[in-house]
Amino acid sequence: MARLEQIGFLGFDVFGTVVDWRNGVARAAAPFLQQHGVNVDPLDFADQWRGLYQPSMQRVRAGERPYVTLDVLNRESLETVLARHEVDFGSISDAELAELNKAWERLDPWPDSVAGLTRLKRRFSIGTLSNGHIAGMLNLAKFGGLPWDVIVGAEIAGTYKPMPQAYLKSAKAVGLAPHCVAMVAAHNADLTAARANGFKTVFVRRPAEHGPGQTSDLTAEQDWDGIVDSLTEAADALDC
Amino acid sequence: MARLEQIGFLGFDVFGTVVDWRNGVARAAAPFLQQHGVNVDPLDFADQWRGLYQPSMQRVRAGERPYVTLDVLNRESLETVLARHEVDFGSISDAELAELNKAWERLDPWPDSVAGLTRLKRRFSIGTLSNGHIAGMLNLAKFGGLPWDVIVGAEIAGTYKPMPQAYLKSAKAVGLAPHCVAMVAAHNADLTAARANGFKTVFVRRPAEHGPGQTSDLTAEQDWDGIVDSLTEAADALDC
Repeated sequence: MARLEQIGFLGFDVFGTVVDWRNGVARAAAPFLQQHGVNVDPLDFADQWRGLYQPSMQRVRAGERPYVTLDVLNRESLETVLARHEVDFGSISDAELAELNKAWERLDPWPDSVAGLTRLKRRFSIGTLSNGHIAGMLNLAKFGGLPWDVIVGAEIAGTYKPMPQAYLKSAKAVGLAPHCVAMVAAHNADLTAARANGFKTVFVRRPAEHGPGQTSDLTAEQDWDGIVDSLTEAADALDC
Repeated sequence: MARLEQIGFLGFDVFGTVVDWRNGVARAAAPFLQQHGVNVDPLDFADQWRGLYQPSMQRVRAGERPYVTLDVLNRESLETVLARHEVDFGSISDAELAELNKAWERLDPWPDSVAGLTRLKRRFSIGTLSNGHIAGMLNLAKFGGLPWDVIVGAEIAGTYKPMPQAYLKSAKAVGLAPHCVAMVAAHNADLTAARANGFKTVFVRRPAEHGPGQTSDLTAEQDWDGIVDSLTEAADALDC
């Protein structure tokens, strides 16, 4: 990865790249769904909830509503999904919904994440460059032992990826020019936007993010500056 | 420290509380002063530079200028101090001034800081709640091995302590009510403001911050929720 020699900061996408949101959300949702008689497979429920992720951010990106943090959007999306399953909201307390929404802060890292980040941190500053909010990223790090140096991304920028300011304000916050920052992500679209804003790029293949039937982001769609199958492989490639 | 049982986040003042700015700045300034024939003791120079810290922030607090990051203020203060010593700015490059300004990102932790923070981090989320900016706090952490979970404080809030929003927006960013956050500082004034905004408070005695002749903040001036002589003592008191 010779093109990454000048990098000072590695900014990580988190949901899907560093942590396994699908199984974690399903694990948290299962008892809730059972208790309230919602007849849906917990993994399908996780997919449906996540399916509203991009549309919910799109309204902010389009300027149709002011920036709100991801936990606000996730909570709205949760209620939307539950409504589609015709749940009886009268039987569900606000505290239960808030608790279920915390599922996004209690997701297991992929098996290589903590080891890879710990090694990468020796040579680089590392941090989240996620659409997650600061408190969510902090709680997720404490839950899974993710050794971030700093949390930047959407809340710092006041907008969501792939808007340019999400990348540019994050680079500015860590005190570096865009070409001295690498975006690390399992999603080609994220890297496309990062590169368009001058960032270096590392693609991490996560073929199980969406379960066994995944069809998206199975391969690198451009000649990213790094292409790896795990964060430990990234550490190997970067001599960490 | 029974009053700290409900705390989820410890927010730390950094300059003086966690790191020794005086000796670090003097160390960085010494060769610069010698090279440019500035006839001042490096420790005195550090004191003079730091002496402009509060006045420089006061213009932002008073609304006389928009929020700018601390490295901008430090750079202006550096030039002010040098001008008082009648240096020849024509002989000094911008790069030299920028490099000297980085002294604030290369300060040694007090001997107990890394060990204390590492222990406190096991039980609490820990982060900077400093007037320093994100990049400066990040670089300082990498330099000294400070194991922060998150960086909040002035840049997150867009204003400087002791303005209420510096505390309140930092608590909000980490997702907690003020009474679930403790401010840890070597300065009574910082704790007074934190308490006024609902925070819990821990005073760390740092009698050498200003050198052997220090006269301020030698003792706790209120019944802070914790009063300790080091961060390892704080860890002891909090069963970490």
